[in-house]
Amino acid sequence: MKNLNIGMIGYGFMGKAHTNAYCQAPRFFQNEYRPVLKALCARNQEKAQGFADNWGYESVETDWRELLKRDDIDAVDICVPNNLHKEIAIEAAKAGKMILCEKPLAMNVAEGEEMCAAVEKAGVANMVWYNYRRVPAVTLAKQLIDEGRLGRIFHYRAFFLQDWTINADVPQGGAATWRLDAEAAGSGVTGDLLAHCIDTAMWLNGGIKDVSAVTETFVKQRKHAETGEAAPVKIDDACSFLCHFENGSLGLFESTRYARGHKALNTLEINGEHASIAWDLHDLHRLEYFDHRDDSIVRGWRSIHVSDGDQPYMDHWWVPGLQIGYEHSFTHQVADFLKSLETGEAAHPNFRDALQTQKVCDAVLSSAGERAWKSV
Amino acid sequence: MKNLNIGMIGYGFMGKAHTNAYCQAPRFFQNEYRPVLKALCARNQEKAQGFADNWGYESVETDWRELLKRDDIDAVDICVPNNLHKEIAIEAAKAGKMILCEKPLAMNVAEGEEMCAAVEKAGVANMVWYNYRRVPAVTLAKQLIDEGRLGRIFHYRAFFLQDWTINADVPQGGAATWRLDAEAAGSGVTGDLLAHCIDTAMWLNGGIKDVSAVTETFVKQRKHAETGEAAPVKIDDACSFLCHFENGSLGLFESTRYARGHKALNTLEINGEHASIAWDLHDLHRLEYFDHRDDSIVRGWRSIHVSDGDQPYMDHWWVPGLQIGYEHSFTHQVADFLKSLETGEAAHPNFRDALQTQKVCDAVLSSAGERAWKSV
Amino acid sequence: MKNLNIGMIGYGFMGKAHTNAYCQAPRFFQNEYRPVLKALCARNQEKAQGFADNWGYESVETDWRELLKRDDIDAVDICVPNNLHKEIAIEAAKAGKMILCEKPLAMNVAEGEEMCAAVEKAGVANMVWYNYRRVPAVTLAKQLIDEGRLGRIFHYRAFFLQDWTINADVPQGGAATWRLDAEAAGSGVTGDLLAHCIDTAMWLNGGIKDVSAVTETFVKQRKHAETGEAAPVKIDDACSFLCHFENGSLGLFESTRYARGHKALNTLEINGEHASIAWDLHDLHRLEYFDHRDDSIVRGWRSIHVSDGDQPYMDHWWVPGLQIGYEHSFTHQVADFLKSLETGEAAHPNFRDALQTQKVCDAVLSSAGERAWKSV
Amino acid sequence: MKNLNIGMIGYGFMGKAHTNAYCQAPRFFQNEYRPVLKALCARNQEKAQGFADNWGYESVETDWRELLKRDDIDAVDICVPNNLHKEIAIEAAKAGKMILCEKPLAMNVAEGEEMCAAVEKAGVANMVWYNYRRVPAVTLAKQLIDEGRLGRIFHYRAFFLQDWTINADVPQGGAATWRLDAEAAGSGVTGDLLAHCIDTAMWLNGGIKDVSAVTETFVKQRKHAETGEAAPVKIDDACSFLCHFENGSLGLFESTRYARGHKALNTLEINGEHASIAWDLHDLHRLEYFDHRDDSIVRGWRSIHVSDGDQPYMDHWWVPGLQIGYEHSFTHQVADFLKSLETGEAAHPNFRDALQTQKVCDAVLSSAGERAWKSV
Repeated sequence: MKNLNIGMIGYGFMGKAHTNAYCQAPRFFQNEYRPVLKALCARNQEKAQGFADNWGYESVETDWRELLKRDDIDAVDICVPNNLHKEIAIEAAKAGKMILCEKPLAMNVAEGEEMCAAVEKAGVANMVWYNYRRVPAVTLAKQLIDEGRLGRIFHYRAFFLQDWTINADVPQGGAATWRLDAEAAGSGVTGDLLAHCIDTAMWLNGGIKDVSAVTETFVKQRKHAETGEAAPVKIDDACSFLCHFENGSLGLFESTRYARGHKALNTLEINGEHASIAWDLHDLHRLEYFDHRDDSIVRGWRSIHVSDGDQPYMDHWWVPGLQIGYEHSFTHQVADFLKSLETGEAAHPNFRDALQTQKVCDAVLSSAGERAWKSV
Repeated sequence: MKNLNIGMIGYGFMGKAHTNAYCQAPRFFQNEYRPVLKALCARNQEKAQGFADNWGYESVETDWRELLKRDDIDAVDICVPNNLHKEIAIEAAKAGKMILCEKPLAMNVAEGEEMCAAVEKAGVANMVWYNYRRVPAVTLAKQLIDEGRLGRIFHYRAFFLQDWTINADVPQGGAATWRLDAEAAGSGVTGDLLAHCIDTAMWLNGGIKDVSAVTETFVKQRKHAETGEAAPVKIDDACSFLCHFENGSLGLFESTRYARGHKALNTLEINGEHASIAWDLHDLHRLEYFDHRDDSIVRGWRSIHVSDGDQPYMDHWWVPGLQIGYEHSFTHQVADFLKSLETGEAAHPNFRDALQTQKVCDAVLSSAGERAWKSV
Repeated sequence: MKNLNIGMIGYGFMGKAHTNAYCQAPRFFQNEYRPVLKALCARNQEKAQGFADNWGYESVETDWRELLKRDDIDAVDICVPNNLHKEIAIEAAKAGKMILCEKPLAMNVAEGEEMCAAVEKAGVANMVWYNYRRVPAVTLAKQLIDEGRLGRIFHYRAFFLQDWTINADVPQGGAATWRLDAEAAGSGVTGDLLAHCIDTAMWLNGGIKDVSAVTETFVKQRKHAETGEAAPVKIDDACSFLCHFENGSLGLFESTRYARGHKALNTLEINGEHASIAWDLHDLHRLEYFDHRDDSIVRGWRSIHVSDGDQPYMDHWWVPGLQIGYEHSFTHQVADFLKSLETGEAAHPNFRDALQTQKVCDAVLSSAGERAWKSV
Repeated sequence: MKNLNIGMIGYGFMGKAHTNAYCQAPRFFQNEYRPVLKALCARNQEKAQGFADNWGYESVETDWRELLKRDDIDAVDICVPNNLHKEIAIEAAKAGKMILCEKPLAMNVAEGEEMCAAVEKAGVANMVWYNYRRVPAVTLAKQLIDEGRLGRIFHYRAFFLQDWTINADVPQGGAATWRLDAEAAGSGVTGDLLAHCIDTAMWLNGGIKDVSAVTETFVKQRKHAETGEAAPVKIDDACSFLCHFENGSLGLFESTRYARGHKALNTLEINGEHASIAWDLHDLHRLEYFDHRDDSIVRGWRSIHVSDGDQPYMDHWWVPGLQIGYEHSFTHQVADFLKSLETGEAAHPNFRDALQTQKVCDAVLSSAGERAWKSV
């Protein structure tokens, strides 16, 4: 058993999700490497200590540069707002640390390029937390596609619909709502939500060639959480786009935080010559599957309860019929990362994969700004 | 083309449903016989005439005995409260008329025996309106079972849940609510709702051997619609029973008019060694089907949208994806009855089949009364 | 009771659907006018006669110009391929006939303009068969929106997904597959399927301002049904578009005949500030409704079984829980048309309404051709 | 922070589920007491050590009597086959240990009485792992009922359907399949599955008065896993029962391991005067709720995605829309147990509560054996 000493930067929602995954992975997956919660790094000493105590981090740092200097840290996990990813990642690479970076990779392609260059030059293991690939039902979709069950693909569509910012009193900026602040987040739903859909889409259906997008900001002005001042909202509240995939299929994507009734409805559907697949995050343990080769009189969409031991990851959990939840996708990602250290085969999505998603995001925002089709 | 001259007795909900079926059947199904709406019979001349005018009945009678005397009537359709079925049916048989009788066949087994004897002695075609057999999804279920797709059967369960009598102000008796009056209806949910479930169950899964039942009357007293007087409620508001089928499978049935949220939720599920089937009336155009022989990783309940031309009856309607509704089950029953006249093979369920359902109903009520298992 | 003498042109799928509606409407809806099936017109005398006999048309014509000359025809119903709509409609208007025209109105906006001018000049009642407005669940959606239950609208999305042309052996042209022949149909899914979605969308959510579209033809060549020769496919197999509505909401539309597993999945979803609505044709009797004003702990999408007497049209049918089907939307349209003759208020959508849909369709096709946003 | 030193007896499926809960509870719930994995006890030293290493148990015992002697153990968790519960529990009580016992409490009521007497005499905290009460959707159901939202209750129905023993090659006895061996399990589905349904039912709907049950053993003979010898199967493969609740409502319960297509379909539905609730384990994060007081035109079953911070337990997990899974029910039970130590209010279900469930189970088996109604 080898230790993998983790230095976590940030303790927000994602800090909690990743930390839980480091705790759970070795209990349910047997790997050579075992994560050790070595240090938690955040500017607020007191809050950092509280989080560290709760989760069992051995120490606390308040300056990420100090964290990077420590010899007892093997890997850093970047769980801070998007505008801080680049600098930390590049310095971490220079310090020879493995890097697990929250998504989206960067504020834009230019930053992402620098980050890729840095980790590739340093030769450090790197991964981006596009966790939805590791929801067992999504991983099963990938398996079915790779087995050729769908045949030629005609259509791919994906949505990520939320409704939490309809209320105009939700502020922008600050610790809880930095995702509404363009300074911190770079973009709105495009980087926060569509990036997930794009990562999954390209993993399942290959590269995206060109896009035609539209964005909208429904609430034009919001109070800033820290200053209390009303300020123009510069992020995209909603974004939809059409696209062509390299395999000739058509794509349709939409994301918004103004779809009343949908809390976190991340969906995908893929229509092939022989079969189709659909999935959504609100019932993440199910995969919908239609196979045209079934006898015609009993053909229908199958609702697959992905909880059997022969389905991805599920031999590590309970028994058939007993579902797992959201956080398990992170646990799987940690388990796969640990395994990659053992096998030497890079875990995905790495920085280079995530850069490709960033390119699509940038093309989408550019297309929306110019009202024109854009090549990726 | 041969005419089948219909004499309809009654113009209530079922009179309308059957009449519509006589109109629609020849338009969508090509048979040698074509129903002709010859006469509508009901005690209230004015209302009868209104109904006849709307639907195109050529004449009106106010006394069913007069109707039976007419030479130009080939078949009578009995759409009156249950307590009147026996006398009319026996006289109609004596008059040599074919009989299409609304369900349940009779007030009890004794009446049903007399009715069977009468039609069999007279040798007249006879049928009982257990229409749910002819919902295409249910007919498809029958086909799948007959093809042996399910293998040995372990379980059958069926419910018929409504909620329209929860309000204690709903009266009993009268034209609209005779179903709550034991004098007119014989029983409550047992004859009205469970009888449907039992007919379908025995058609799909064979005979029922014995039952253990419980009944309940939640609202003990209701005003009578005609007298305005409060009177004890003598029907069963709810009835559940356990049973053994002759094939060794276990059965579970429940019916009630006190299941808030369910308007007419008639359901069935059958679990076999290899496959299972489920259906319900609220989405009557779908059949749920699970086949254990599917590849294990893509096994799931299939939701079959029964609207394709190779599924029962559907080649007579629209195109795939376009559903039909409740009333079509009656149209199918008329079409099948017309065809039976052509082929000489009796249509089902006939009186003899419906008597068997009556026997189960009587056993159920007897079991509930005595708190003991009863053989059918 | 007044007669409305119908002259039906065409006896295909839509001829059957409309004819059934003429038969059923007066039985379930009480109007001053009653349709009379006066004449069926089609080039093939024998087939026309067969259809007329089955449905009860009193006479047959083989030349629509002869039909228009007849004094005993009040209204003509145009159920022929799209390329024939214009000429017949204009001549019918000149002949003073009311016109019920199958959708889409015309091959393009220019034709539609001529048709509108003709009926308006002639002052004849006119209507286009965008039937889905009259599915009770869709009509209920309209009612809820008009009552202001949704508040400000943010998003509208609609799909019409089919899978029947994936097989490259399906021919183009001919009686059964003229919809794949650009000569007869004008366009592919845009005019056939998206036109329905657009009509419903503008009825529910107001005008569309601009569009960015993409089309695709997946099977490039198909045999012609009549000549047997392979020929390039000139219709759009699939079409998606983004749009802005005049009320500031964003729209997303997609249609295809290559979505494996979907037979006729016509859907809509509309997200408002306070509530959202979703509907689809595969379960046309249900409306999904989410109301944010519900108590937070019991908030959820409500699946409304639209079968109660206080829901649109349903007081004319059965009892709660008993669903109706596809064809009933046409029956409702006839009933409303008959009523409009009584009240003098035009029934909708009329030619002018349908022209607006045509304008969106033309903008969509133009946008796709030029890869640019187009104003409507 | 105070330690609660745990001595776990057994390392099977439930040993894993409980251990995970001890690890997770303090991370997501802040209580004064924190579980410490002090000792793992099992006969096989090597396997015990492996399990202990994986989960972080500090020590291993191979004799539970030795475990009970240790001063550093505060609470024992009994995760062994049912036939061993009684002796261990009684000795543990004598040793002054708190006891967390896997369900069902005992082999029968007589054993359960002894166990209750022992813990009550010793005055030790005790709890039984009927974990489904703590699925947030089920806890929410309890809250809604307690708030009076349902009004008078008419019906309760619950199922627990599985299909894993249809194959006659599944053995009985041994570590993996002791649940099929009457010697170890006491009963079949009654104690294993129905006991869960009964516990939940009585928690939600109060006591059960009398029952009429039927049981069946479909596969009469199975090989014993240890001896390899075919032996008669003495457990119940399936069990259904009717019952009366003390509040006057009717109950219907069914459990089987022969319902093809259902892996672990634990369900409940409760119908009240004003509202109804339904839930099932296959989508455990959803609660279905129908409220008759909704406006009639928009009344429907609401599918509540139980993942918001104001729903039970969910403020401790992620954000709205992100579901949790099966194992979290155990985590909640641990959290509540820890809290009970703080407050001094007993956690439920305790031994006395579980004894009541045992009484219903015994009445059910007795009723099935004698084919007669039995009082509880």
